[in-house]
Amino acid sequence: MYRSHNCGELRASHSNTEVTLSGWVQGVRDKGFMIYLDLRDRYGITQLYFDEESTPKEIMEKASKLGREFVIQVTGKVVERASKNPNIPTGDIEVLVSELNVLNSSLVPPFTIEDKTDGGDDVRMKYRYIDIRRNPVKNKLIFRHKVSQAVRNYLSQQDFIEVETPYLIKSTPEGARDFVVPSRMNEGQFYALPQSPQTFKQLLMVGGMDKYFQIVKCFRDEDLRADRQPEFTQIDCEMAFVEQEDILNMFEGLTRHLLKEVNGVDIEKFPRMLYDDAMRLYGNDKPDIRFGMEFGELNAVAQHKDFGVFNNAELVVGIAVPGGNAFTRKEIDNLIKWVKRPQVGALGMVYSRCNDDGSFKSSVDKFYDQEDLAKWAEVTGAKAGDLICILSGDKNKVRAQLSALRMELAERLGLRDPKVFAPLWVIDFPLLELDEETGNYHAMHHPFTSPKPGQIELLDTNPGEVKANAYDLVLNGNEIGGGSIRIYDKKTQAIMLKHLGFTEEEAKAQFGFLMDAFEYGAPPHGGLAFGLDRLVAILGGQESIRDFIAFPKNNSGRDVMIDAPAPIDDQQLEELSLKLNLKS
Amino acid sequence: MYRSHNCGELRASHSNTEVTLSGWVQGVRDKGFMIYLDLRDRYGITQLYFDEESTPKEIMEKASKLGREFVIQVTGKVVERASKNPNIPTGDIEVLVSELNVLNSSLVPPFTIEDKTDGGDDVRMKYRYIDIRRNPVKNKLIFRHKVSQAVRNYLSQQDFIEVETPYLIKSTPEGARDFVVPSRMNEGQFYALPQSPQTFKQLLMVGGMDKYFQIVKCFRDEDLRADRQPEFTQIDCEMAFVEQEDILNMFEGLTRHLLKEVNGVDIEKFPRMLYDDAMRLYGNDKPDIRFGMEFGELNAVAQHKDFGVFNNAELVVGIAVPGGNAFTRKEIDNLIKWVKRPQVGALGMVYSRCNDDGSFKSSVDKFYDQEDLAKWAEVTGAKAGDLICILSGDKNKVRAQLSALRMELAERLGLRDPKVFAPLWVIDFPLLELDEETGNYHAMHHPFTSPKPGQIELLDTNPGEVKANAYDLVLNGNEIGGGSIRIYDKKTQAIMLKHLGFTEEEAKAQFGFLMDAFEYGAPPHGGLAFGLDRLVAILGGQESIRDFIAFPKNNSGRDVMIDAPAPIDDQQLEELSLKLNLKS
Repeated sequence: MYRSHNCGELRASHSNTEVTLSGWVQGVRDKGFMIYLDLRDRYGITQLYFDEESTPKEIMEKASKLGREFVIQVTGKVVERASKNPNIPTGDIEVLVSELNVLNSSLVPPFTIEDKTDGGDDVRMKYRYIDIRRNPVKNKLIFRHKVSQAVRNYLSQQDFIEVETPYLIKSTPEGARDFVVPSRMNEGQFYALPQSPQTFKQLLMVGGMDKYFQIVKCFRDEDLRADRQPEFTQIDCEMAFVEQEDILNMFEGLTRHLLKEVNGVDIEKFPRMLYDDAMRLYGNDKPDIRFGMEFGELNAVAQHKDFGVFNNAELVVGIAVPGGNAFTRKEIDNLIKWVKRPQVGALGMVYSRCNDDGSFKSSVDKFYDQEDLAKWAEVTGAKAGDLICILSGDKNKVRAQLSALRMELAERLGLRDPKVFAPLWVIDFPLLELDEETGNYHAMHHPFTSPKPGQIELLDTNPGEVKANAYDLVLNGNEIGGGSIRIYDKKTQAIMLKHLGFTEEEAKAQFGFLMDAFEYGAPPHGGLAFGLDRLVAILGGQESIRDFIAFPKNNSGRDVMIDAPAPIDDQQLEELSLKLNLKS
Repeated sequence: MYRSHNCGELRASHSNTEVTLSGWVQGVRDKGFMIYLDLRDRYGITQLYFDEESTPKEIMEKASKLGREFVIQVTGKVVERASKNPNIPTGDIEVLVSELNVLNSSLVPPFTIEDKTDGGDDVRMKYRYIDIRRNPVKNKLIFRHKVSQAVRNYLSQQDFIEVETPYLIKSTPEGARDFVVPSRMNEGQFYALPQSPQTFKQLLMVGGMDKYFQIVKCFRDEDLRADRQPEFTQIDCEMAFVEQEDILNMFEGLTRHLLKEVNGVDIEKFPRMLYDDAMRLYGNDKPDIRFGMEFGELNAVAQHKDFGVFNNAELVVGIAVPGGNAFTRKEIDNLIKWVKRPQVGALGMVYSRCNDDGSFKSSVDKFYDQEDLAKWAEVTGAKAGDLICILSGDKNKVRAQLSALRMELAERLGLRDPKVFAPLWVIDFPLLELDEETGNYHAMHHPFTSPKPGQIELLDTNPGEVKANAYDLVLNGNEIGGGSIRIYDKKTQAIMLKHLGFTEEEAKAQFGFLMDAFEYGAPPHGGLAFGLDRLVAILGGQESIRDFIAFPKNNSGRDVMIDAPAPIDDQQLEELSLKLNLKS
């Protein structure tokens, strides 16, 4: 037996008990005649005490040679401390050591095992197994476990069945690229790793499974942007005999349960917003509604004056920054510089200060009088003391730019409080999205999403206008889940695939099994998938998902700890009937 | 809203309630003036009733056109039945339908949706989504969910943390072949899919995570034997600061909990058996101890007579078949034929009948007298009425053959009762196993398993004699879990890899990260992994795992439903810097 207690549980009530502890040496203070040692394990830190008078000499000597991160086992008596440490739960006691067993030594760790470490990202990733000893990382992994367990228990109580779907499936054109897996037993053929279990969960509905979920790894071979991973985890859900309303209620219930269970936050009813309104009011289909700064469209009150920039713009749109009139000229200049960054891409920013006396002072006073500016304030909801920031240009672009500015300002103003949770359903997404490069439409959600009743005819005439039974769950400006009511008859699915540019042969080759399934009594069904990595990070009050993943990959898709991917040997390639065809 | 109730919940107490149900048409009995329809969903079957007098004519007509597996929605009144059906939970009521909505039609299904179907394996696999509607398949998937949930909740309560380890890792020589995944972003390099998260769980222990588990998919590109799958699920577990005893106790606790929770069976303490004893007494490292028929080694009492077959054999070994003297001559001849099948491979079988009067009648009476045969009975524990079956030959081969015969006889005698659960720990496995073809030793468990204390020196002199801190959990003759206490210092790991034939460079390339990790304070640790597919099947009283997997692959590793694997297009290959190199 390596330990009778862990390093986080001893209290004054254990005084005079003999205990055995095991753990890592967090630090040693050697004063010669006495040695204090902090022993750490997953559960906490306990102070060990060696003292010339009561500790055998050879143990004193052994103890004095211990280095950071050595693994030791000690036996000793729990003693109440003279001077207690109120900062740690075990601070009332220490253990007077009578036996010491060095289980393993340690090289000097490449960074300090403290809440604030001196290690940079790269070295921490290479030595991830050491980084995990640090509370911030360890606690995030434990937090993730708790969220996953809460999800599973809640959904199980709601009669959902977790069904494992296969990982070795078939390559499908679902937007991103598939990772493929060559088959040795089926020469020249490949499996693909799932981008999601989409078709399988629909087949489970055809199979009568009715309420399905799965916490499951998914894979996308995308060029990685920051904070994306080639493998990620979904809470994948599907229900049969449901309408959109049933789905929203069910997963609002799940999310409410998590907020309550994990964060202790009660949220009564989640607001809902039409996609079109989200774009109009926030320039974004995942608005952060922890704060206001809704967009005010100013075309009617700002165009047809002599200011050509506005007159030539498709959209003139502004936000009122609360208290923004306090910004110095330099701060405003910085904002203007900020919106011109290539990542944002605005050509410029017009502003109007709302003075305390009710007057306005704008950057375009040459073209607009006080009455005009008062209208701007009215439309954007600006009050005395605010700053109105205005961008103009092509509608889609300028919305995205002002949305970025809104988020940046909220960040600077401290309005994005990670302890505040503002969930939001965004509903009635468009069915199709225009690819501006190719001029083709593709599915905004995926090819299995059903159009709103009665709108399928619009596909031929106004494809961009067709709305879908599709919805996203947004939390604090992040899409944490999304889904749709699915097509469940072969004919509609065929029409949809045709409009997405599939020939009949392609549709049959890719989705024949699903369309066949629709002919054998497919029930109406729909579902939703949460991104677990993101969900956990937001519930944990963080923006970055990386530390909620035990062994993440870097932005080139590499695991720098194990050094993967890596070349394989010629025999393996030969067995797989493959040859390298290197470009470089 | 598609339904107010499901098809399994209405009772007499619901009489006169108006309800809405949705589901599949299980069957229709159309008597012209009245129609009975069985409506089925996941939860059960409810009888619907249409009647000329009270049902509108157009609904009667619609109902008369419904076919099997049509999906419908009905509204109607719950009525207590005149003649109740005690065989189904809803048998006290029927629903008198007032509204009927056909949600989807169905082609005639390729097989009947009944507990006993007329569909063969192949057609059921192709239309798996229909097969899942059948109770035997559906219930197995639900059962699997319950077992998984019970595992997760139990281990969570024991402070285990479920940590997701990566699926895109590095190819390692762990016995079976890896599936590999070409990386587009890292030209000419490959990820591998994990055969198990072995190294990652060990790194989590180095990371202080202390108690880890994960229900996780694993992958092996093996030539598939019956009832093996290229992807399978493990309950993967690891603990730090533990000895073998701690691990056995913990997972005996888990298994006991499952038997109690899932099967309602109380089992106090699991017996333990040395590997050497299991081989000696059952010829097998996973003995089924639901029944006796232990081996009796007969060399001392059967050799050195004139029977050359026995004299020349390394081992003469027999079992007493309870009541086997009742076998006819033909039945015994059949047994002799059975052991000669190529799958068993024995050259012949000697037997001795134990007559009720205490006399014996053997197939080798020419060589052995009654006194000799009495000794055989004594050694094998045969009683009057039994049959002693004896095989002889090379020790390892004959043990395997007699083990096969023992299982076959138990099957024929009905001793393998799936409702009886006999768990068993087999401990003290050999560290290494001789590959008789190559003459090399390889790790019996895996290269990370630690030898028994003090035995590492034997590696140089008697490698086959070294015992490991390795154990298997056996249930009803199936290995349901196995694990070991791991090596946790770099030096021992290096010695072990050297003995397994790795050069220093190979060891570094493959396992460098793990051996590095051992230098930064690795704690003593060990673990175990359960095969979930097998565990669930056995708890469910079945031998085959296939129906406990929602979408299994066939023996060529193909998913015949979605037709995977499949060729990929040239552009995909090009992007992956690969060319096909077909042999055929």
